[in-house]
Amino acid sequence: MYLKIVVENGKEIVDHPGSVAVVAVDTDDRVWLVRQRREPARKELLELPAGTREEGEEPLVTAQRELEEECGLTGGAWRELVSGWTTPGFVREHMTLFLAEGVEPTGEQDLDENEDVEIVRWPVDEIEQRFGELDDLKTQLGLLLYVTSRATTRGR
Amino acid sequence: MYLKIVVENGKEIVDHPGSVAVVAVDTDDRVWLVRQRREPARKELLELPAGTREEGEEPLVTAQRELEEECGLTGGAWRELVSGWTTPGFVREHMTLFLAEGVEPTGEQDLDENEDVEIVRWPVDEIEQRFGELDDLKTQLGLLLYVTSRATTRGR
Repeated sequence: MYLKIVVENGKEIVDHPGSVAVVAVDTDDRVWLVRQRREPARKELLELPAGTREEGEEPLVTAQRELEEECGLTGGAWRELVSGWTTPGFVREHMTLFLAEGVEPTGEQDLDENEDVEIVRWPVDEIEQRFGELDDLKTQLGLLLYVTSRATTRGR
Repeated sequence: MYLKIVVENGKEIVDHPGSVAVVAVDTDDRVWLVRQRREPARKELLELPAGTREEGEEPLVTAQRELEEECGLTGGAWRELVSGWTTPGFVREHMTLFLAEGVEPTGEQDLDENEDVEIVRWPVDEIEQRFGELDDLKTQLGLLLYVTSRATTRGR
C-alpha cells in the first residue's frame, strides 16, 4: 500500500510528512497555477503548485524545489502566508503556504515528474472575479490571503 | 479498518462521503469554535464546528444537524461561503463551508456524541488579531471569508 496507515490511541490515521503550496506571482503580475487530473475528485483541478516534504526537509526548501520542478520558476521574494492541518480528523498532513513574489521563468519544467501538469497563469487583478472557478481549499485560502494582503498594502 | 481505502486508475484513495463546516455567529456577534484533541495533530485544535455527511444527505442538512449537536445552536440565516476539496492528492473529501448568522443557543449539547469538545466563543471583532492562534486550513479559510465579506458589507 502506498498510503501509510497508522493507529494511535485507537484512531486510524493516514501518516504524512507534511506538504507545501505556493502562491507564485511573476514579474508580470501573473499568478501561476497548475491544472491536473485528480483521481479523488475524478476530474481536473486548478491548484496552487504544491508538493510533499521529504523527511526532515524544511518547508521553504520543499516549496522552492517544487516550484522549480513543476513550473520552472526561480528567484523571487518569499514569505510564509499561513500554515495549518488540511484534514485533522484522519490525516497527519500539516501544510505551509508561501507567497513568492517576482519569480522568474527559466522556461524549463521537469517533465519526467510532471508530464500531465498544465500551467495556467492568471493576471492577479482577475483573481477575485475568477475565484468561483476554484474547487480546492488550499488554493482558495492562499489566493484569498494574497488578495487581502495586497489590498491592505495598497491602503484600500 | 475504519478508513475506507479504494484504488482507482491505479491510485490509492481514502474514500469519504464529504463534509461540512460552519462559521456560526450568534446574536451577540460571537463566532463559535470547538476545541478538541486531534490524534493526527497530536494536540488540541481550535476549529469550526464540522462534520461528515451521511450518504445522500444534503450539505446544508448535515451542517445544521452538526451545529445543533456540537454546539446546541439553532436558527439563524444560512448561506454557503465556499466549497472545495480538502486533500485532492489522496482523499475524496469535498467540503462545503457555510455561514450561519444570528444563531441562538438552546443551552443543550449532545454530550454522548461530543464529550470532549470544548466550546470557544470569539467576538467577531477579535478574529483578525487572533488569526495566528488557528492551525487548521478550513477554519482559516472560513473565518477569512467571513471577515472579508463583513468588511465589504460595511463599505470598508
